[in-house]
Amino acid sequence: MAISSLLLNPIYPPHLPPKPPTRLHKTSKPFTCRNSLPKTTTTNPLLKDPNHKLSWKDELQNAYPNESSALEFDVSDEKFQELVDRRCADNLRMLILDSVQKAKAGHPGMALGMAEIGVFLYRHVLKYNPRNPRWFNRDRFVLSAGHGCLLQYVCLHLAGFQSVQIEDLKRLCKLGSRTPGHPENTVTDGIEVTTGPLGQGVANAVGLALAEAHLAARFNKPDVSVVDHRTYCIMGDGCAMEGISHEAASLAAHWKLNKLTLIYDDNRNTIDGSTDLAFTEDISLQFKALGWNTITVDDNHSNMRSFKSAVLAAYRETERPTFIRVKTRIGKLSKKEGTSKAHHGIFDEDDEKQMKQKVKWDNREPFYVIPMVYREMQVQADHGEELERDWCSKLYYYQSKYPQEAVEFKSLLYNGMLPGWENSLPTWSTSDPLDATRGYSEKCLNQLAKVLPGLIGGSADLASSNKVYLHDYGDFQQPASPGGRNIRYGVREHAMAGISNGIALHGGGLIPFAATFLVFSDYMKNSIRLSALSHAGVIYIMTHDSIGLGEDGPTHQPVEHLVGLRAIPRLLLFRPADGNETSGVYKVAVANRTVPSVIALSRQKVLAHVEGTSADAVARGGYIVSDNSGPNLPEIILIGTGSELCLCEGSASVLRKEGRRVRVVSLVCWRLFDQQPAEYKEEVLPPGVPRRVSVEAGSPIGWREYVGPEGVVLGVEEFGASGAHLDTFKKYGFTEENVTRVAKRLLSQ
Amino acid sequence: MAISSLLLNPIYPPHLPPKPPTRLHKTSKPFTCRNSLPKTTTTNPLLKDPNHKLSWKDELQNAYPNESSALEFDVSDEKFQELVDRRCADNLRMLILDSVQKAKAGHPGMALGMAEIGVFLYRHVLKYNPRNPRWFNRDRFVLSAGHGCLLQYVCLHLAGFQSVQIEDLKRLCKLGSRTPGHPENTVTDGIEVTTGPLGQGVANAVGLALAEAHLAARFNKPDVSVVDHRTYCIMGDGCAMEGISHEAASLAAHWKLNKLTLIYDDNRNTIDGSTDLAFTEDISLQFKALGWNTITVDDNHSNMRSFKSAVLAAYRETERPTFIRVKTRIGKLSKKEGTSKAHHGIFDEDDEKQMKQKVKWDNREPFYVIPMVYREMQVQADHGEELERDWCSKLYYYQSKYPQEAVEFKSLLYNGMLPGWENSLPTWSTSDPLDATRGYSEKCLNQLAKVLPGLIGGSADLASSNKVYLHDYGDFQQPASPGGRNIRYGVREHAMAGISNGIALHGGGLIPFAATFLVFSDYMKNSIRLSALSHAGVIYIMTHDSIGLGEDGPTHQPVEHLVGLRAIPRLLLFRPADGNETSGVYKVAVANRTVPSVIALSRQKVLAHVEGTSADAVARGGYIVSDNSGPNLPEIILIGTGSELCLCEGSASVLRKEGRRVRVVSLVCWRLFDQQPAEYKEEVLPPGVPRRVSVEAGSPIGWREYVGPEGVVLGVEEFGASGAHLDTFKKYGFTEENVTRVAKRLLSQ
Repeated sequence: MAISSLLLNPIYPPHLPPKPPTRLHKTSKPFTCRNSLPKTTTTNPLLKDPNHKLSWKDELQNAYPNESSALEFDVSDEKFQELVDRRCADNLRMLILDSVQKAKAGHPGMALGMAEIGVFLYRHVLKYNPRNPRWFNRDRFVLSAGHGCLLQYVCLHLAGFQSVQIEDLKRLCKLGSRTPGHPENTVTDGIEVTTGPLGQGVANAVGLALAEAHLAARFNKPDVSVVDHRTYCIMGDGCAMEGISHEAASLAAHWKLNKLTLIYDDNRNTIDGSTDLAFTEDISLQFKALGWNTITVDDNHSNMRSFKSAVLAAYRETERPTFIRVKTRIGKLSKKEGTSKAHHGIFDEDDEKQMKQKVKWDNREPFYVIPMVYREMQVQADHGEELERDWCSKLYYYQSKYPQEAVEFKSLLYNGMLPGWENSLPTWSTSDPLDATRGYSEKCLNQLAKVLPGLIGGSADLASSNKVYLHDYGDFQQPASPGGRNIRYGVREHAMAGISNGIALHGGGLIPFAATFLVFSDYMKNSIRLSALSHAGVIYIMTHDSIGLGEDGPTHQPVEHLVGLRAIPRLLLFRPADGNETSGVYKVAVANRTVPSVIALSRQKVLAHVEGTSADAVARGGYIVSDNSGPNLPEIILIGTGSELCLCEGSASVLRKEGRRVRVVSLVCWRLFDQQPAEYKEEVLPPGVPRRVSVEAGSPIGWREYVGPEGVVLGVEEFGASGAHLDTFKKYGFTEENVTRVAKRLLSQ
Repeated sequence: MAISSLLLNPIYPPHLPPKPPTRLHKTSKPFTCRNSLPKTTTTNPLLKDPNHKLSWKDELQNAYPNESSALEFDVSDEKFQELVDRRCADNLRMLILDSVQKAKAGHPGMALGMAEIGVFLYRHVLKYNPRNPRWFNRDRFVLSAGHGCLLQYVCLHLAGFQSVQIEDLKRLCKLGSRTPGHPENTVTDGIEVTTGPLGQGVANAVGLALAEAHLAARFNKPDVSVVDHRTYCIMGDGCAMEGISHEAASLAAHWKLNKLTLIYDDNRNTIDGSTDLAFTEDISLQFKALGWNTITVDDNHSNMRSFKSAVLAAYRETERPTFIRVKTRIGKLSKKEGTSKAHHGIFDEDDEKQMKQKVKWDNREPFYVIPMVYREMQVQADHGEELERDWCSKLYYYQSKYPQEAVEFKSLLYNGMLPGWENSLPTWSTSDPLDATRGYSEKCLNQLAKVLPGLIGGSADLASSNKVYLHDYGDFQQPASPGGRNIRYGVREHAMAGISNGIALHGGGLIPFAATFLVFSDYMKNSIRLSALSHAGVIYIMTHDSIGLGEDGPTHQPVEHLVGLRAIPRLLLFRPADGNETSGVYKVAVANRTVPSVIALSRQKVLAHVEGTSADAVARGGYIVSDNSGPNLPEIILIGTGSELCLCEGSASVLRKEGRRVRVVSLVCWRLFDQQPAEYKEEVLPPGVPRRVSVEAGSPIGWREYVGPEGVVLGVEEFGASGAHLDTFKKYGFTEENVTRVAKRLLSQ
């Protein structure tokens, strides 16, 4: 019943064949939801209210004297409802105008052009419950053209979301407001994902639709669908040009995400001018070639019937996602209409005045809302509440008939983690054979898959190299395993990360991981940043994490990537040294559901076991691995990460044999270490020990903070080189001998 | 005469109508080229050599007894020449096999599958002169599927390039070899660009083709074409999936780069398995939708006639770039043929033996080359030399008939810089109105355009925001200005950077710049890295460089980007504080033709003029802006960059009024400062002054190196926020008052 709302409003006759009613235990109590629901009526109250009708009559006769002269003003009259839609759109535009004029900032152009679409979606199409914006089975709406956020803010306000009040619209782009310059899911309820960087929202939407399809395949039964919602996304010309959209769109068709609808705001203008300047491809044929159902709506402004048909066609699709190309006029109403000048910025006084005149706004106050517009836009709210109630009943039925699946499904809704999951993580002893840290990671991941039903993910065509295949769980959307938990992303790193954000923010308890070589974090950098900004707890598994990868050479050898990722606010970058640290890393990464993690792992086997590493200590970010100083301070501290920690330990052994007091510290995660209390940090790195050496095969930038002014940073300041692992390590000084040499030089000073 | 070589070999009848001879001054001396050319014969020497023919007879009868039984062994016989091609491909495969077996590393699959294409391109299609691999008017060949580099290494060797000897093939992937694991233009002559990260080569190829089209539009005359070459690029499934390829391909069609031919190695395998796993779109229809001429070659292994037709069709195209889809068998010859297992890794002994048997290699030594194969493959060399000589004559004619254009063209060939160009850069005084640094940049760029004929570039649809439009130079490939120097990239940051690398490495003296918001450097990160790795002196102009951009909010506010870019080896990241520093930055950036620069510029006006900044001092990376300490050491040093330098200066004024000795240092480029002699660095930041404050609205990581253990780093550790510039700056402590407060706290300790 994805666009069941179309059935609610009598002007839209039921184009869809009615579904057989789901067999519900009508008398049972509903499955307990996170929010309890007040009782509501299930019928449209406006149908019964003569005053509402009369108020509309006055309003419409004033606004559209010609169109309304022959009108019956019957709520079941299609023409009347179309004029209501239109007046709602007028009001939307006035709020957009008032907001930018007051803010002296913002991007009105797209929002003005898409006002009718916004009204139509929020009034007739989307399933949502403003009183519980996080209701699991709601439709997901993504504004990939995030600069058009005013469209969504105003829609959310009119539709009854508490998160956007008139006061919020008045504070557009003000520090601390709930209406920032681009939509942020962590700031405003009703916003699903954080968008603005173009194309990201398209990938997010594919991720949201993937999550739905995956959960539906796993949990729905022939007699009851507990997962059944749709994903809508609006994108602009900018999104259409970005490669990430193309990657994501290719995957959406490959995965047959038929419940995804992409609405393309084809306004033929970008910031620099007409799209003729740089965008002349046949975009509809593009999407067709990718495998999409493509529909063009020539004019959405004069009436919405063809858009409505397109939405219904999308609803009927059983295989393909749907691409609806809507031709619009950017900056509709303004003097700047149809030009790139309307993209951002405010309107001059004269223009503002004319815009208000055009919609017969007379002398209404800024931020005025026609009372009937609120009522019309909020019918969906009651309907959404009813849908949520139905869904809860379904869940109850599901629980009684499919108790085992229900436990798993419920655990997902509550975060995807069963108590004690971390006990499944393997431990290693020094008698185990040496492995690459990517090998240790593979074992962790496959153990976790058994206890974390939400763990799902894949690689950008490097599953075997990244060692991230979940061996017992099949491939998502392959014929034999529609609910498989391995996602085959192909060579599409950027889309992979954007899709992972969508999966993480879907709210269905999925824990997405995404894997590639560390050097290719470059391709997905902005999406990784957005994981951190939008609180998406994606686990990035990045193997081949240094020049130690060897033969593939400098194009594949990350150097600057560790520090570049460490600098992203909130994100946790881990570089575990061995199996036990890798287990510890997963424990922290999985537990942090609103913070993304990047796990940097070696391609090459670690050179030696390090006694003293600890899974539990990883949570502190840095800790003492070994120390022979007894009650004294050490003479020197060797600090390592990842595959270089064993060089520190090896060097320490040599120095200790020569009578030196040496401490070895693993600094597996800078940010977590930085967050420790000062006493702990001073305990690990005592200020009284100025002789320190850091050993990490990456950029030296940032290490001074830990080694102090007299310490030595062993890092890589150039690009690496193609060669065998040990040759490459030697060339750049990453040998036990060199670490010892540097340490001795320090000790002799 | 792009595939004139097809005419050389008599088996390929002249499908192309002969061109009217260019009117050359036959008696004149040729235009002086960088390399002098030995005399060569203009006819194919093999036509006259009976021994060559006889040797082939033995070789072919042994290798292909059935096919050769009815053969005439006449060099003009088409069937004979096809068998020669085939035998060359066999030899290519044997060298590929021997190389990976010896290296115990490498990616043989693609190289084995594309052997025939390699032979065909290097033997019949490409225009090149191995004795002068950098001859300007050569065809450009890019292997975007860089992991298949063995294909190119072996072709270069057989074709007579000195850069790849048999000894080099034996040292595949060894440290310091000329045959690294992915092709690097800085290591191996004959490699145009550095590839490996998938999709980059496609964008590079578009850049190379753009450079040709641009120069041709500017310099060619109806009677003489001094710029006339083609660009060929091989891409694989991985490249096809990457968004950057899509972006670049869209632009190639938009710009009508008809001399670009993209050969798609459609082997239906990626690392993780069949392309069915993740890649099921209709790629040919894709390229058609983008506006390409698309051709499919069903089988390139049994004979090359359809590939030849495709190449000729591409040659005849006058509007569209050409996409040739070639269906191949990955790992051809091996047991692993046709499977993803052939992608990388060596072959077992049994497989190796069988592969050699299949091509009747008998007991030939590893790395054996049939002598006739060398001779056949090197006919192109003589031909290329002849073409270079012709081109030199054309240049001479051009110089005499179009002396003015010739001066400019010649200056481009010699780096694009006329002496004294730097004097055109503007200077500013404190009486000038305040501007944003992006505003100062606009003036620099437009001045430079007048004196640097090679300066060309554009923005990813933010020309007006980035302020990079060259006002007097039109748009490239727009009807009114085919030779325009503004490039409209659309919203395609990644392709923009990859294309800029191609332009920089074309060798035609162009100086590409590429602009977007600093936060979107994320989208182009890998291409920026490759600029540095491949010595492409691209100038990246990145505006909106901090939280100071204000209302657009955290999705658009760079925080971690400065340090992330600083960590890229070789690259110069600049953050100028005002007009004079901006001029200084351009002076260094333009002069560094083999080092990329990123110029971070403010959206907002700087808050005050800073006396004491210097254009010339920028070259040292850091310098003293002001100091009231006289002969003494300062009590405190305030270090700033960009729009925060004036906060340091403002705070210094306050402190000085209170009797403090304060130094202000601008650290406009870390790397250049780090490269200064120790004395200079200690003069600017004396070890005897432990009280230091750094002020930069970005990640604090790395600043400890400059402020020392007791200093304070004022940075941004969180994501920013939507709000007015001054509100946002205040929230994060970037006010004169806060700098003063922090400084006083330090001074009181």
